[in-house]
Amino acid sequence: MIASRPLRSRRGVATIANAVNSGKSSALAMVEETLVRLAAYDIVQPQIWISRATPKELRAAALAVDARISAGEVLPLAGVPFAVKDNIDVAGFETTAACPAFAYEPDASASVVEQLIAAGAICVGKTNLDQFATGLVGTRSPYGIPRNAYDLSYVSGGSSSGSAVAVAAGIVAFALGTDTAGSGRVPAAFNHLIGFKPTKGRWSTRGLVPACRTLDCITVFTDKLSDARLVDEVVAGFDPADPYSKPLANRPIGRARIGVPRRDQRMWFGDAQSEYFYDRALETLGIDAELVEIDIEPLLEAARLLYGGPWVAERTAAIAGLLASDPDAIDDTVRSVVSPGVDMSAVELWNGIYRLAELKRLADQMWEDVDLLAFPTTGTTYRVAELQAAPVALNSNLGFYTNFVNLLDMAALAVPAGTRSNGTGFGITLIGPADSDHGLLSVAESYLAAANLPGPPPLDREGKMERIKLAVVGAHLKDMPLHWQLTSRNATFVGAFETAPTYRLYAMADSVPPKPALVHSADGAAIALEVYELDAAGFGSFVAEVPAPLAIGTVTLSDGTSVKGFVAEPRAMIGAEDITHLGGWRAYIARG
Amino acid sequence: MIASRPLRSRRGVATIANAVNSGKSSALAMVEETLVRLAAYDIVQPQIWISRATPKELRAAALAVDARISAGEVLPLAGVPFAVKDNIDVAGFETTAACPAFAYEPDASASVVEQLIAAGAICVGKTNLDQFATGLVGTRSPYGIPRNAYDLSYVSGGSSSGSAVAVAAGIVAFALGTDTAGSGRVPAAFNHLIGFKPTKGRWSTRGLVPACRTLDCITVFTDKLSDARLVDEVVAGFDPADPYSKPLANRPIGRARIGVPRRDQRMWFGDAQSEYFYDRALETLGIDAELVEIDIEPLLEAARLLYGGPWVAERTAAIAGLLASDPDAIDDTVRSVVSPGVDMSAVELWNGIYRLAELKRLADQMWEDVDLLAFPTTGTTYRVAELQAAPVALNSNLGFYTNFVNLLDMAALAVPAGTRSNGTGFGITLIGPADSDHGLLSVAESYLAAANLPGPPPLDREGKMERIKLAVVGAHLKDMPLHWQLTSRNATFVGAFETAPTYRLYAMADSVPPKPALVHSADGAAIALEVYELDAAGFGSFVAEVPAPLAIGTVTLSDGTSVKGFVAEPRAMIGAEDITHLGGWRAYIARG
Repeated sequence: MIASRPLRSRRGVATIANAVNSGKSSALAMVEETLVRLAAYDIVQPQIWISRATPKELRAAALAVDARISAGEVLPLAGVPFAVKDNIDVAGFETTAACPAFAYEPDASASVVEQLIAAGAICVGKTNLDQFATGLVGTRSPYGIPRNAYDLSYVSGGSSSGSAVAVAAGIVAFALGTDTAGSGRVPAAFNHLIGFKPTKGRWSTRGLVPACRTLDCITVFTDKLSDARLVDEVVAGFDPADPYSKPLANRPIGRARIGVPRRDQRMWFGDAQSEYFYDRALETLGIDAELVEIDIEPLLEAARLLYGGPWVAERTAAIAGLLASDPDAIDDTVRSVVSPGVDMSAVELWNGIYRLAELKRLADQMWEDVDLLAFPTTGTTYRVAELQAAPVALNSNLGFYTNFVNLLDMAALAVPAGTRSNGTGFGITLIGPADSDHGLLSVAESYLAAANLPGPPPLDREGKMERIKLAVVGAHLKDMPLHWQLTSRNATFVGAFETAPTYRLYAMADSVPPKPALVHSADGAAIALEVYELDAAGFGSFVAEVPAPLAIGTVTLSDGTSVKGFVAEPRAMIGAEDITHLGGWRAYIARG
Repeated sequence: MIASRPLRSRRGVATIANAVNSGKSSALAMVEETLVRLAAYDIVQPQIWISRATPKELRAAALAVDARISAGEVLPLAGVPFAVKDNIDVAGFETTAACPAFAYEPDASASVVEQLIAAGAICVGKTNLDQFATGLVGTRSPYGIPRNAYDLSYVSGGSSSGSAVAVAAGIVAFALGTDTAGSGRVPAAFNHLIGFKPTKGRWSTRGLVPACRTLDCITVFTDKLSDARLVDEVVAGFDPADPYSKPLANRPIGRARIGVPRRDQRMWFGDAQSEYFYDRALETLGIDAELVEIDIEPLLEAARLLYGGPWVAERTAAIAGLLASDPDAIDDTVRSVVSPGVDMSAVELWNGIYRLAELKRLADQMWEDVDLLAFPTTGTTYRVAELQAAPVALNSNLGFYTNFVNLLDMAALAVPAGTRSNGTGFGITLIGPADSDHGLLSVAESYLAAANLPGPPPLDREGKMERIKLAVVGAHLKDMPLHWQLTSRNATFVGAFETAPTYRLYAMADSVPPKPALVHSADGAAIALEVYELDAAGFGSFVAEVPAPLAIGTVTLSDGTSVKGFVAEPRAMIGAEDITHLGGWRAYIARG
């Protein structure tokens, strides 16, 4: 499956559905396109996925949608590829919640997934997450660490890490996340996305692995606001099978008075860029609204109940069985966060419930003074390495402006508000009272129109030199004589791929051990290779050992992307045997 | 203050307010009447009160109301005397919750009390209750055991014991109770009253000592349905100071389909009379509605969370301080009910919260099949002595049809439905979804009109021979030589009173120790006496020891009621000194 078209542009939900409904395209064509995009990004971050549909399954699903269109149906999400965070059930996929010991085969899809599929959408796979949706970072998963799509050294944000990156990277047009404390908003901010967290009970949570069952929301990531609205139209509504579902309601809100944190209460954690972008966002919002500074202490007090109070025990309740039977199966950081809930008493929880009710009342009164809030989504962001050194404290910083929202029964909509110098996103979140979802979408529309932000920068596909991908074609392949030069440098295997069909492969003469030379040629073929990833130091020392006539240059892969890789000086071809027709070095060695 | 008019008729809220507003009567006249009624019932059950306003305070309050009426105001509760359960704050009264060690002086009245007083009502005093509102019986109080107004050997029902009896006895026109598990309904049923338990959050609970703060409701007892509706009009509404208050709403309900427990699920605890009256009530309801048998197991499962699950810890939370610092200050039975909550975990509570949400959803779906429920209020009733022998188990039986209601966010209205052979009441409760309060009142109106029940029987003022009141006037008075004949028989002191002004008192000649003779005479005066209460056996043996010329006959008190007491044969007057002018035996002894 070779594609030369640009694969980095994001995909639109309505765009795809309109094309498929109108017959200008087909669900099948969309699936083929998706397969190409999947392959293209697998070389960057295969770890954003925990499981995926097979190409055969995707094509079958597409043909079923195309048949419905042919029969005259109009489907609001016709042929739209989407991804699902792996704490939400999709029939036919294991649900892991990023914990293999917890995994199970669901009997049925979650209600919202059923609705999306019925509306013509096609589920591509299940995405990685902070285990049990506990985290705002993406680093807490045994399935690998999804990284920020715009700077791979930075966190993707979490817990809906894989879903956010899958949309940012243009693989799917939308992806379901979840949000208990900010998990559907933080990764949206970091990846220049819309992150829509509906009012609790607006979207059914049947089929969701609970984090805090009284607080959990299913959310959506999209490129465009209008696409979030379209998904909401499909899935919002009462579900009698979900005890926390409630009848659909829309509470109109004004937009003249926007609440912002009192200046002395704003926390930037030393990040001047965030402060700058927030001030720009407020300038834009201030064009046609009054900005009202509010005391956010009651909101912060509510937030403290979540990780510093008896709501911790709600997370404990969700995994109490595993915590008792096999605690080592749980991520160390997640376990350290959730375990204290075991010793909390019901009396403590009742007192927390009362205090929250009082704080909720204070928060409700706030809506008499302001129509909505416009807060930073986060005050800063962190490198993966920083986060790993202080996994709990830095994670908490990221929740400063998000943790209170679900506790106080508010709707929230994260929107982009700036691009940091490293390419990652800064965002703001519009927050309104329960059932203000439509109102928030409409205010956000005006804001984005007025802000006129540049689009997201190019994806970071190379790791900005922090981790470097290296394509090997000969003696460094797995099980070959020089493979140890990779393993000894802690290289990680990214995947087996092919070059673009523009290379020829030669077996060099008199090379010990035998080695090939990969040579670019218009009259070429696709050559099998393996891609590994090394840190800069390891990569540098590796390059230093490469003997002439070989060299490390740039190799183009079948999807058009480029990685570092073995190339050869012209002299390598002297006396060499052209083995291009074999398609790769393994076939040559096997031939003997 | 002597009254000869009948004091046993109940009082109407609207009747009084109309009379005062129209100028046909005055608040002051109503207070004077109330003082008479208070005194008249004090000889029966002074223990229904924990504290009372002084006559001076009541008259001052009445004059203030009369001044407002004179100034042209129309007050919906003008001059209406009411009582308040002593777990609800009234400024100027201690709040005890029936636990002296817990008592405090509130800064302000509860919101509902403020509204009632603003509407012209006059608070007469604070009534006894099962301590911390934990109980459905009335026996759990250090302030004495209020007994059923229609058979003093039976429980009053609780926890709002004193309030129900105060209305049944015609002392006040309405009384506030509270209801967490049935406390505003069970005593209504037993005393032939309306017991209105509004939807949670309809009446503010600011100023209420919590039992289970997420479940507590303030309620009202009245003689007539229309009076309950009138009180609701005054106090219903949103209170921003109560985190559990909610905006006023009225949900219309139908009345064509009435849910009743499936026949095999009905529990009568061996009480055939209850079953009979319930079947009669259903016949009446069935005249213009379909009776739909429903499976009540989900309701019962919810109920089990209350006393068999983590809601116990909600009661614990309410008194955690006292339970830790001074556990012996708590009633033994209440302590045995509440203590297990100390060891319940937050995880257990979270799981209970989830299960309740599921059961709530099932209950909500029930409203698609039925418009309202009509359940027995209780399946049976018990003697105080029975209850004391099994204080927890029999109490639980009384909550079988009431415990689930607040957990599942329903409104309830207890109405009379029959008079047992012992004179106590059997009742049914109409139960509807949240905010169906008006609908329930309206269905109850039709039911009562169709049922055409006889009014309540006469009050039991004498204890139906189980406990017998005895007036003593001489050597048996406290600190007098023969007082031991009472104490040795476990007689309890009821109070110090006066006879009607139709007696003369003589100091008998040659009596050892000196003794008086009380002699009826049209030309008499009020003579001081003390009333004690003995059980039948003790009373009998006491009478057996009374020497001639004295005898035990009937003595009329100043309020017109009669008790057993010392009288004398005519021969007692031989050589005796008329000491009527001294007003009593103590004065004679003091004179020396």
